[in-house]
Amino acid sequence: MLKLYILGGLDGIGKNMMALAYRDEMVVIDCGIMFPDSDMYGVDKIIPDFSFLEKHQKQIRGLIVTHGHEDHIGAVAYFLEKINVPIYGTRLTLGLVEHKLNEKGLKKVQLKIISETSRLKFKYFQFSFVRVSHSIPDGVMTVIDTPEGTIVHSGDFKIDYTPVDNHVLDMHRLAEIGSKGVTLLLSDSTNAVKKGHTLSERQVGESFERAFKGIQGRLLVATFSSNIHRIQQAIDVGKRFGRKVSFAGLSMENTAKIARRLGYLTFDDSDTVFIGHIDQFQDNQILILTTGSQGEPLSALTRISNGEYRLFQIKKGDTVIISALPIPGNEKMVYATIDKLGRKGIHVIYEEASKMHVSGHAYSEELKQLQMLLRPKSFIPIHGEFRHLYAHCEIVKELGVTHDFLIAENGDVIEVSRKKNLAIVEKLELHPKYIDSNGVCLEDDALIEERRQMANDGVVVFTFYLNHQGDLIEDIRISSRGVSPVPEEFINGLKGSLMDQYNHMLTRKTLEKELLSIELEEMVRKYMIKRTGKSPCVIPLIVIK
Amino acid sequence: MLKLYILGGLDGIGKNMMALAYRDEMVVIDCGIMFPDSDMYGVDKIIPDFSFLEKHQKQIRGLIVTHGHEDHIGAVAYFLEKINVPIYGTRLTLGLVEHKLNEKGLKKVQLKIISETSRLKFKYFQFSFVRVSHSIPDGVMTVIDTPEGTIVHSGDFKIDYTPVDNHVLDMHRLAEIGSKGVTLLLSDSTNAVKKGHTLSERQVGESFERAFKGIQGRLLVATFSSNIHRIQQAIDVGKRFGRKVSFAGLSMENTAKIARRLGYLTFDDSDTVFIGHIDQFQDNQILILTTGSQGEPLSALTRISNGEYRLFQIKKGDTVIISALPIPGNEKMVYATIDKLGRKGIHVIYEEASKMHVSGHAYSEELKQLQMLLRPKSFIPIHGEFRHLYAHCEIVKELGVTHDFLIAENGDVIEVSRKKNLAIVEKLELHPKYIDSNGVCLEDDALIEERRQMANDGVVVFTFYLNHQGDLIEDIRISSRGVSPVPEEFINGLKGSLMDQYNHMLTRKTLEKELLSIELEEMVRKYMIKRTGKSPCVIPLIVIK
Repeated sequence: MLKLYILGGLDGIGKNMMALAYRDEMVVIDCGIMFPDSDMYGVDKIIPDFSFLEKHQKQIRGLIVTHGHEDHIGAVAYFLEKINVPIYGTRLTLGLVEHKLNEKGLKKVQLKIISETSRLKFKYFQFSFVRVSHSIPDGVMTVIDTPEGTIVHSGDFKIDYTPVDNHVLDMHRLAEIGSKGVTLLLSDSTNAVKKGHTLSERQVGESFERAFKGIQGRLLVATFSSNIHRIQQAIDVGKRFGRKVSFAGLSMENTAKIARRLGYLTFDDSDTVFIGHIDQFQDNQILILTTGSQGEPLSALTRISNGEYRLFQIKKGDTVIISALPIPGNEKMVYATIDKLGRKGIHVIYEEASKMHVSGHAYSEELKQLQMLLRPKSFIPIHGEFRHLYAHCEIVKELGVTHDFLIAENGDVIEVSRKKNLAIVEKLELHPKYIDSNGVCLEDDALIEERRQMANDGVVVFTFYLNHQGDLIEDIRISSRGVSPVPEEFINGLKGSLMDQYNHMLTRKTLEKELLSIELEEMVRKYMIKRTGKSPCVIPLIVIK
Repeated sequence: MLKLYILGGLDGIGKNMMALAYRDEMVVIDCGIMFPDSDMYGVDKIIPDFSFLEKHQKQIRGLIVTHGHEDHIGAVAYFLEKINVPIYGTRLTLGLVEHKLNEKGLKKVQLKIISETSRLKFKYFQFSFVRVSHSIPDGVMTVIDTPEGTIVHSGDFKIDYTPVDNHVLDMHRLAEIGSKGVTLLLSDSTNAVKKGHTLSERQVGESFERAFKGIQGRLLVATFSSNIHRIQQAIDVGKRFGRKVSFAGLSMENTAKIARRLGYLTFDDSDTVFIGHIDQFQDNQILILTTGSQGEPLSALTRISNGEYRLFQIKKGDTVIISALPIPGNEKMVYATIDKLGRKGIHVIYEEASKMHVSGHAYSEELKQLQMLLRPKSFIPIHGEFRHLYAHCEIVKELGVTHDFLIAENGDVIEVSRKKNLAIVEKLELHPKYIDSNGVCLEDDALIEERRQMANDGVVVFTFYLNHQGDLIEDIRISSRGVSPVPEEFINGLKGSLMDQYNHMLTRKTLEKELLSIELEEMVRKYMIKRTGKSPCVIPLIVIK
């Protein structure tokens, strides 16, 4: 039986990961992170639960990564710490993976480069790849020949007829694959709610051309560091207008370095200037490519807007182009950055109407094109929140090409068959892991819950010193943070209630510290809810000596 | 000298408030709340700083409220607790204000109804009003004749040529005002970044018509409770398709009640059904109007989507129309609600493409129309973040009608003169107040900062019991919440460091409890940063006895 294990990616944008297994052979596709919601306090990123794969690691022949975005490769280092298998990806993708592994000190990893002409042959599976357009170069669609026929995994893709690198999607090959018959298509749903067709990345180059022409002062362009084609276009247009390029932000510098070394980004040393040296040039000779298009607190553009970027001070007359749209959830941060820049007299170009951004994910008509070329027997939408997956199915229904589709969830184990319809045969219980800014895994969900509680309602501490006879040998002490309001009589009331509760407990036969702690904590919680309507985190410090 | 005091509304959408003063006469316009950012933990709403007005309360002749939205009337009750003056507003606006005051038990308030034909005459100021279209009925533009000429305050407005209540903006009157000369225009900037012209509210009625026609099951429409015209349209279209209306959500019920009583909402009792009784009807006879279009955690639609709404259980085959777009910052919550409904088999209609929402705030071309009709000598954009105010000024520059405009900030005191250009003559220091969910004012900003710290990095508590000779009489106890990770050796290390620090302090001559606390707290903080990179909130419990 051919089984597809959904290990992530179907509960939102991020932590994409799945495995395909037949008998004793298993191959994993993608291994990404997800960024946390704003109320996941202290969480830096979320990685998939690898425990199922750990259990079956002997069967795993490799990990295939479809492109170099964080939601597809961000968790590779964590994966490799547990499971050491070869990693397959295109040159740029593996270049970015390698950088990640070096940072973590992981060296002895087999990185195996694939390309459009590669064929990976395992016992039951054979993999080949079709190059796609996306907001990072060198992404692939994965074609898997299996004992149950062909499976196609779209990866992240769009259809760009005039891509910056001239690698147009090979529609003839897809048509051929479709003609031979496709058992299952797994296809990117990120933009399934968007009607129409994405515009070509080249459109942004044209917008740069129009905008750069009219700008006299220094020019900053904020975009995703992985959007190499956009960076190339900005550099090229900048050069035509006599501007030298500087890079601001760690990921911008690193990605540019890697992409240039691997030949994905082309410029001469003489076209660049170190950002600390730009004062040697005139304002209209400067182009700075920077991170921070999402208003991320520690990004270069945010620090620049706060006047906290050591090497560069923004000034009136500078122009900032934000070549990105806010990812849902980031709007407030992005607009705060725009406002801060605006108040300093900086002209900021950021509107959707400015055409400084195009999406890297297929809209409805592109999704239809892929469906029509491949004509799959079955279909599972991947990469998205439920509403994206649902919209993708609505599109497929409309086409009437396949009537066998299902909206899967993370943890679903799906039987894929040439003859039968898709069926969920098992559900894995997955516990994605929270990673903090130190890279430490927060093993305990309770930690997040405690933080949430303290964020909303504060914390109350009380001490209770007893001797073994049960006599209180020190006064009860109470302290709080983030609780409002805490007048003296309130504290005294709480002390009194604690004493009452304790005296009541003394009437019982035994007095266990554990139980004492739980009951007193509970009493304080109830007191707080009753008196303040709030339920702060309660920390009992109970000592019996 | 005529002075304009900007008391809120220019640092984002919300807490709109300003005052106009000439000699001993002062009039206040609007008194709204602002909703907090997601990292203002435990804050329910933010109200303007009234301290300047309190100081000058003898001069205040009244408060004029331009319409009934929370960002314009939400803080009226807090204002009245400090300053008792008459409140002027249209019938619906005052109906909504009155409800608020009743909730707070404020009774002896002078509520004075104004209309398009009213003239409020004070010693130096004379007020009249022009009715505008907006996403709540009965909003007004305020025209103020002053010793320095006419000032026009737009309120929130859009230009709707086919409004549901047929009250089209009186352009002839505006033309007449413009012909006589306007010293200053203050105009709504909320949608200044949007190009073109808003669509008529009637458009939504047409979308309802198209959508309702095809829907067989029960139908829920989520929208803002204050959008009475939209509610009227939903009820009317529902009735045509044989549906009875129920209201879900406290603010929906209250607003519908008030609006109906005052004649702004019209339906027969026989057109309605109590939501607890809808099972007596067939599914296609039911229309539920609900709050929760922004995914607010406690709203009816959110509770319905969680299966936590007592009177109504959603089921497969129901349809939910979200007749609103997410306000920036609410996207994640809105999409989470849509996903939860979708996973339960509910069809959700929510796309921008579904045309189930139109904005209540003027787009660029409407803003231009107002400028061209009034041809003001000076202009100040109001209601918005900096980027909105900036975009509004760009529009005005383009028109070339006035060359005297300024982007003001909250706290600015602006001299308005018939002859001179606008000038900021003073800056008030404003401290907006945070209100928690109990309606209690959080006097201390430190509280929010403590919560933020605990949310991100947790809390560490330690005890220190000393006698007056300075001997430690109890073991140091350490506890933490939300800190990761806290192994035993870590705690022991911290204990050791505390002892070292204390012994070091003992070598000094005097030992003050205050100082002891500060220094030990500081030591713990440094220890945590060094060992964990985190800076948790530290609570010292130091007892000297």
